[in-house]
Amino acid sequence: MSESSWNTSITEINPNEVRLRGYRIDELMGRVTFGQAVYLALKGKLPSSEVGSLMDAILVCSIDHGATPPSALAARTAASTGASLNAAVAAGLLSINRYHGGAIEDCMMVLEMGIERAKDSGQEFVEVAGELVEEYRAAKKRIAGLGHRIHTQDPRTHRLFALAEEAGITDRGVEMIRALQGAMAAAGKELPINVDGAIAALLVDMDIPREIGNAFFMMARVPGLVAQVHEEQSRERPMRRIHPTDHIYDGPEARSLPE
Amino acid sequence: MSESSWNTSITEINPNEVRLRGYRIDELMGRVTFGQAVYLALKGKLPSSEVGSLMDAILVCSIDHGATPPSALAARTAASTGASLNAAVAAGLLSINRYHGGAIEDCMMVLEMGIERAKDSGQEFVEVAGELVEEYRAAKKRIAGLGHRIHTQDPRTHRLFALAEEAGITDRGVEMIRALQGAMAAAGKELPINVDGAIAALLVDMDIPREIGNAFFMMARVPGLVAQVHEEQSRERPMRRIHPTDHIYDGPEARSLPE
Amino acid sequence: MSESSWNTSITEINPNEVRLRGYRIDELMGRVTFGQAVYLALKGKLPSSEVGSLMDAILVCSIDHGATPPSALAARTAASTGASLNAAVAAGLLSINRYHGGAIEDCMMVLEMGIERAKDSGQEFVEVAGELVEEYRAAKKRIAGLGHRIHTQDPRTHRLFALAEEAGITDRGVEMIRALQGAMAAAGKELPINVDGAIAALLVDMDIPREIGNAFFMMARVPGLVAQVHEEQSRERPMRRIHPTDHIYDGPEARSLPE
Amino acid sequence: MSESSWNTSITEINPNEVRLRGYRIDELMGRVTFGQAVYLALKGKLPSSEVGSLMDAILVCSIDHGATPPSALAARTAASTGASLNAAVAAGLLSINRYHGGAIEDCMMVLEMGIERAKDSGQEFVEVAGELVEEYRAAKKRIAGLGHRIHTQDPRTHRLFALAEEAGITDRGVEMIRALQGAMAAAGKELPINVDGAIAALLVDMDIPREIGNAFFMMARVPGLVAQVHEEQSRERPMRRIHPTDHIYDGPEARSLPE
Repeated sequence: MSESSWNTSITEINPNEVRLRGYRIDELMGRVTFGQAVYLALKGKLPSSEVGSLMDAILVCSIDHGATPPSALAARTAASTGASLNAAVAAGLLSINRYHGGAIEDCMMVLEMGIERAKDSGQEFVEVAGELVEEYRAAKKRIAGLGHRIHTQDPRTHRLFALAEEAGITDRGVEMIRALQGAMAAAGKELPINVDGAIAALLVDMDIPREIGNAFFMMARVPGLVAQVHEEQSRERPMRRIHPTDHIYDGPEARSLPE
Repeated sequence: MSESSWNTSITEINPNEVRLRGYRIDELMGRVTFGQAVYLALKGKLPSSEVGSLMDAILVCSIDHGATPPSALAARTAASTGASLNAAVAAGLLSINRYHGGAIEDCMMVLEMGIERAKDSGQEFVEVAGELVEEYRAAKKRIAGLGHRIHTQDPRTHRLFALAEEAGITDRGVEMIRALQGAMAAAGKELPINVDGAIAALLVDMDIPREIGNAFFMMARVPGLVAQVHEEQSRERPMRRIHPTDHIYDGPEARSLPE
Repeated sequence: MSESSWNTSITEINPNEVRLRGYRIDELMGRVTFGQAVYLALKGKLPSSEVGSLMDAILVCSIDHGATPPSALAARTAASTGASLNAAVAAGLLSINRYHGGAIEDCMMVLEMGIERAKDSGQEFVEVAGELVEEYRAAKKRIAGLGHRIHTQDPRTHRLFALAEEAGITDRGVEMIRALQGAMAAAGKELPINVDGAIAALLVDMDIPREIGNAFFMMARVPGLVAQVHEEQSRERPMRRIHPTDHIYDGPEARSLPE
Repeated sequence: MSESSWNTSITEINPNEVRLRGYRIDELMGRVTFGQAVYLALKGKLPSSEVGSLMDAILVCSIDHGATPPSALAARTAASTGASLNAAVAAGLLSINRYHGGAIEDCMMVLEMGIERAKDSGQEFVEVAGELVEEYRAAKKRIAGLGHRIHTQDPRTHRLFALAEEAGITDRGVEMIRALQGAMAAAGKELPINVDGAIAALLVDMDIPREIGNAFFMMARVPGLVAQVHEEQSRERPMRRIHPTDHIYDGPEARSLPE
């Protein structure tokens, strides 16, 4: 082993064999969903099938949010100049930061802080949540994960929590964000738990490291960015002026999944 | 409708409602896998459950290929300087190009050219494949999708083709790549169909536009890049010299899926 | 020398000594302008002081073109989400492609083709230019480097050609683009040589490889992108909707250089 | 003025006229160097000719540092996969962060903190510097801008300080970094002021906002990255394994500027 040698625990490559965290990729194919494989890649172990479903749901729920978010606009702007697909998607990814897609990690931080404080002080979550809401108000800061520009009831939150319940992973993360929501309401501000807050709570409960919290938004959104870039390059002329909001949906009409 | 107004057919946003290609996202969550949602986002319609499984398998098979590919090394190099997660992943994406991850589209082009020529000339696929192999040899060009630096039998190809068979989508794409493989063998060169070639054939048979062929590699690899970046930043010291091949796998031992 | 060893001819690093193409960096500092150093880095030799001035002028002329170009909008969009400076500038760079900033290389290609054809056929430039204009019209293609969306007389072109004249580098590149402009006019279309066309002609005459033609636009524009990103982050609120054209200049009033 | 209208103070575009901070670009061309134009773009006013020379020197000194820095390796890695020039340069830019190219801003922060503290407390710089060195040692943190992995005397620092002296801008930034260097030496650690530290001190003295401190490294390095990418794509085969240090300089021999 030379001086420059280093280690990795993700994937092992041998002739005719690729193993992800110990499992043969070709054995995984057709037997696990992509959501399950993502969990395996990041956590190093296979999820139960229910947790796997939850992972798929977390990815599905953020796959696209239309053409208005900055990541879509940056990707379309690059695409409009003739960028290759990967470069346009990269421009989109570079627009996922603190103020867009960053609420997951910010919310995880608050939740972890609250949980820690309850543990250290022996207080109830409700009490801790009340304190935190008070502190954030005093500092004139928003608590990430609560409230939404457009949605007064984020339809994705309810679904995520139901699936988490089924998977049996609901724990202190969910408890704490509900306590915070309650404390806000008690302080006179009724706010929905938004999709970022819901994901944050579930990642805390699945023991996913905070540093990769926003990665779930990124992984989910990449296919959406691909769709945005492809639509831009196949439907619009190069170098058009892209108005950030003045567009109209003309895709398939509202429809329901088959029973 | 103002002069600057434009259209999009991907996602419709209304208060408390997000619809992807007409379906409510919260209805999709828990009922479709991420692979199925990707198909919906890009094709505009839901896949059958078997085609959905195939989509998941296509994404699973390319999720990671260790620390040696340039996309992993570029992402780790950026990560090592203290890049944020999205920036490091973007550096990885920018290293997915013609020579790395680009074989899907190049192979789709050959397959579509062969299919077109068979249709125009009325020749059998075997005949057309023989001609193409001859022409590529004369031009001293490789046919993308055949052969692999490491794997003499790509274990992922066999699995993809089996799943495609189950999904009932196997068609002229698969037929043409097999004809090309046969023509190469007849010309004295036994080469495996590699994973890019297999994906290319299946995308042709699922009628996915060639311009987004490489997107399947990108979407699949993003979680792998997240894992590589996270490992770099949690396990290694900043600014280390990253040897491109001299690393050792020290993750979970080889194991099999539970029955 | 190990198997993996490779060579580079740009910069030599030794303790207490950095040499760019053979010259000590600390000796260059204060004695050459950045434009001259760019020429040295890319061509491997020092320019005359007149050619150095021309290089500075080429960089100065593209340093910024306001907030409307896609590179500025993509950089501002990323910046608006809280991107770090390098990430926002990278998003801008990724929006410099064929349709924006790409005219330099496209024009160099036409000029080199014309020069080559004149050499091979023994024709005058005027004749070749007439043929090319005819061919492009027949193919319904524009000749890059002629015409501008906003400027009917690009004020930067005249200045570049005057400086090139002073530097004594005016040669077949400039001659050919003027021949093309003349042939267009003869065909009934009066078009200015735009700044990309002027730069293209001068790069041909300075024997700069075409593959790095667009790099001059990129190198020049990076400081402009820095200014755009800094203004966005210091003057605007995060996540605002960035209208692509509806902005007003409120900087210093029109003024002239001191004598 | 519509609701979405916004303001910019950088560049004004009118037909046949481009004005940077009030000055016609075509008037600037040939009369100011690129370094002077960068100062104008970022500060909003023209530098004196001496300060302009200093700006050029700041850019020249960081134009390239060979093939070993992560920004060069990331750019080469992307280039090696067939990336377009802008994408490869972007991958390089994304590798300029806290641990590489980030020392300028970190050092500016220490200098500004020290200057502020001296002002508030009425202490001499030497005293404040002694305190800061003590505090950093206690916290086991390095002071950015002092020390270098390779150079025991950074040849670029001396030159920058001499040019700043000529330009008459040497002020409290330079005074403070020298005080810190002295305090370190007094504490038993002789360290050179490195090029980042020197630039940091001069930017403080020129009253450049700290948020764009690292931009000077980025703007300077882009041409170096262009040279690295171009060399990679013109000299090496695609997808080679790029050893991070095992390369040899084979460019022009050591030479001196003509008198």
